[in-house]
Amino acid sequence: MSRSKKQLHLNLFLRNTGHHEASWRHPDSQPGGVTDIAYYVRLAQTAERGKLDSLFLADSYGLPPTMQFLVQQALEPFTLLSALAMATSRIGLIGTASTTYNEPFHIARKFVSLDHISGGRAGWNIVTSTGNATAFNFSDAPLPEHSERYRRAGEFMEVVRALWDSWEEDAVVGDKENGLYVNPAKLHEIRHAGEYFNVRGPLNLPRAPQGHPVLVQAGASDTGREFASSLAEAVFTAQNTLEDGQRFYADVKARMLKHGRSPDRMKILPGFCPVIGDTHAEAVEKERELNELTQPEYGVYRLSNLLKMDLRDYPLDGPLPYAELARNAEINSQKARHQLYLELAQRENLTIRQLILRTATSRGHYSITGTPVEIADEMERWIDAGAADGFNLMPPCFPTGLDEFVDKVVPELQNRGLFRTEYEGATLREHYGLAKPERTSGQRAVAAK
Amino acid sequence: MSRSKKQLHLNLFLRNTGHHEASWRHPDSQPGGVTDIAYYVRLAQTAERGKLDSLFLADSYGLPPTMQFLVQQALEPFTLLSALAMATSRIGLIGTASTTYNEPFHIARKFVSLDHISGGRAGWNIVTSTGNATAFNFSDAPLPEHSERYRRAGEFMEVVRALWDSWEEDAVVGDKENGLYVNPAKLHEIRHAGEYFNVRGPLNLPRAPQGHPVLVQAGASDTGREFASSLAEAVFTAQNTLEDGQRFYADVKARMLKHGRSPDRMKILPGFCPVIGDTHAEAVEKERELNELTQPEYGVYRLSNLLKMDLRDYPLDGPLPYAELARNAEINSQKARHQLYLELAQRENLTIRQLILRTATSRGHYSITGTPVEIADEMERWIDAGAADGFNLMPPCFPTGLDEFVDKVVPELQNRGLFRTEYEGATLREHYGLAKPERTSGQRAVAAK
Ligand SMILES: Cc1cc2nc3c(=O)[nH]c(=O)nc-3n(C[C@H](O)[C@H](O)[C@H](O)COP(=O)(O)O)c2cc1C
Ligand SMILES: Cc1cc2nc3c(=O)[nH]c(=O)nc-3n(C[C@H](O)[C@H](O)[C@H](O)COP(=O)(O)O)c2cc1C
Repeated sequence: MSRSKKQLHLNLFLRNTGHHEASWRHPDSQPGGVTDIAYYVRLAQTAERGKLDSLFLADSYGLPPTMQFLVQQALEPFTLLSALAMATSRIGLIGTASTTYNEPFHIARKFVSLDHISGGRAGWNIVTSTGNATAFNFSDAPLPEHSERYRRAGEFMEVVRALWDSWEEDAVVGDKENGLYVNPAKLHEIRHAGEYFNVRGPLNLPRAPQGHPVLVQAGASDTGREFASSLAEAVFTAQNTLEDGQRFYADVKARMLKHGRSPDRMKILPGFCPVIGDTHAEAVEKERELNELTQPEYGVYRLSNLLKMDLRDYPLDGPLPYAELARNAEINSQKARHQLYLELAQRENLTIRQLILRTATSRGHYSITGTPVEIADEMERWIDAGAADGFNLMPPCFPTGLDEFVDKVVPELQNRGLFRTEYEGATLREHYGLAKPERTSGQRAVAAK
Repeated sequence: MSRSKKQLHLNLFLRNTGHHEASWRHPDSQPGGVTDIAYYVRLAQTAERGKLDSLFLADSYGLPPTMQFLVQQALEPFTLLSALAMATSRIGLIGTASTTYNEPFHIARKFVSLDHISGGRAGWNIVTSTGNATAFNFSDAPLPEHSERYRRAGEFMEVVRALWDSWEEDAVVGDKENGLYVNPAKLHEIRHAGEYFNVRGPLNLPRAPQGHPVLVQAGASDTGREFASSLAEAVFTAQNTLEDGQRFYADVKARMLKHGRSPDRMKILPGFCPVIGDTHAEAVEKERELNELTQPEYGVYRLSNLLKMDLRDYPLDGPLPYAELARNAEINSQKARHQLYLELAQRENLTIRQLILRTATSRGHYSITGTPVEIADEMERWIDAGAADGFNLMPPCFPTGLDEFVDKVVPELQNRGLFRTEYEGATLREHYGLAKPERTSGQRAVAAK
């Protein structure tokens, strides 16, 4: 067992009953768990037992109109992750928050608070929101355009990072004798006045243990990749093949150089959905079992929604209407995912029904069905080929899919010297090998009284 | 020991190092604790050992310009209370959120999430914010006028309560066999379109265990009292004398009748700040010790701020400039507290320095210095006189002031049959004896797909 091999990083993508769309119907699943903290505690503790770097909660602020088919809601990330911080001691806790439907002051503060509570384990998946189900819970205006959302995101991050730097590391003096609690020279207003935000600062919490919580992003478009390259320290991405993964990896790391950032300051983590069996046949049988529980009515909805075209009138066992779909690509807000589905269908010559099943497990993320050895092989292949720094683990079904991964695949990775056998650091930054950010200077000190 | 006596309710008002403004300088205090979750866990567990109904976190979104004199910042309420939910099992968890600088969807959801995580122990102290230190972290506009803030608060509550009712109690079916997760007929859009908010709904979380988290408010003005009477289930208030307490109690309960609410659907909890000694002399000595640690520079700032008049040029050992101050009352946004200070100074004929010390312990709340028996006597007197349903406990110094209360005053109250010796219920509603709210009807079901 050699430790000279490149170490991979593992993030657990928590998602209600699992990533397979029919997971909630599986006999092992616990749909009642999604509002039960004990359910999440069990998953988080299993992930920590497996020495995973972090766990991650996706989030949105609206419900899809398909609630009857699917467990879609979940506990709110800040509250849930703070609770999980108390039930774990090492694993990183990554929450999603949108820059489109929040105020920078609130978000900056909640992540610092979570970072204090967890002892430096907070991370933020920065998203700009998708869909009007979210938009209409905040106003009668539809979701802003893609470019507008990213412009706001850029300014949002400027404000948040300035707020995170508004307390110097040693601002708190706590000198009881002389009655000096804070050194006012080390507390700074930010006086941000921009296109979207006016924020005076300082933040009302001392600097986070990690300096800044770890910044995570999942941009797929050109704008999104630029944004991620400029600041993200971990990137989630959906890649269907190793070759696509290599192209994405090379592209984003090259963009980082353009932004003056060293490529090792970001970990790229493609989604990875393993259906695990002790034999290959057992794994295939597991996948079949899950696929049998899917509801075509929901699959057609999901596909129609993603491809922005009503597919209900097309025969399930016929091909996709490629010509019409190509025209739609222009107006599609999720262009990258759209493209990925079309390429998959064409490459494998799939009918609508087959495409639904092919993406039921992982919604366009890479999915593999096999033994622990086959799965570890594939992970190693992606790392070695420069397609990934680690993976965003998406078990098809909780809790069993996670238990199996931790009990069977993790030891295999550890035996190969690819993955830690013990946590070495205490913070999320340390797990990912990310440097603590320097404070930017040039802010004005808060006037003494 | 008779259980026929009216039971009193106790809420612990958590506040960094304690309620005395110089508490952080006391040898017993732990100013470093305010960003350390272990510090809060210890306090919460002590309060739970004392069988207190709830604990409460005040909050604002800005720092005062007096940071050097005082520990003022604290962990953020949603994250902190969710963490405390995991370290306790019975005590209620009341967080503050402002209706002026938040979106109803986010607040509705976070409280439901906290209610699920804590098993029905969430409460919300509804505030409208004060001061431009908060305002300027959200825009370049100053704090909206008092009446404007309450108008927005009214509509905010309409939206939040509709969102809380947007899932019927039995909306989640979880029928794996037939593939029906949610019954779409029991999930409702709210389609709110008002002056301040447009919110479609439904919420993206199933109904809270308590139906609605407990609503707490602390309005003191006429508008504030109207607001509280219309919906609050617990009211915090600052009352300097038992007689003032009686007047406030009678007034608010009478207003409830006007709103068609039974007076027992609200618990009135005046602030109560006990400085406890085994002998009366010891208690007095404790108070003197704390007062000696105050910093006049800060005291004058606090008074100037509250009375909206710069007092730095007036002699500390002279009287308040009553004539000038009377003129200021008109423009004062915290009129009630302002009034309370002036009355106190006049009634007791205090100099500026004496008023500073007199309010250093509890900032205008009722404060008592004495033995456990004297303190229990006073509590009983307030309850019997119809001035309170219980108290908002404000220990001058943490953790010692809380330890002493739990170890010495609580048993005294229990011996008198005034306070529970064990939790009887599981939820915050049950501790306060508040009924679970009914769902309002008349919302439209979410279209099936
Ligand atoms: C693994 C993964 C997780 C994501 N989680 C969220 C999420 O929780 N909320 C959200 O609004 N978007 C989420 N997204 C969407 C991305 O933030 C991004 O918007 C999407 O990949 C499209 O890229 P673009 O923004 O560059 O167009 C996620 C994407 C990926 C790949
Ligand atoms: C015990 C107590 C706690 C309070 N906590 C807060 C708080 O956390 N945040 C806040 O903005 N206001 C807080 N307030 C202020 C009240 O919400 C209210 O605005 C104040 O009593 C003045 O009354 P009015 O709003 O009717 O003018 C508190 C008041 C009291 C008595």
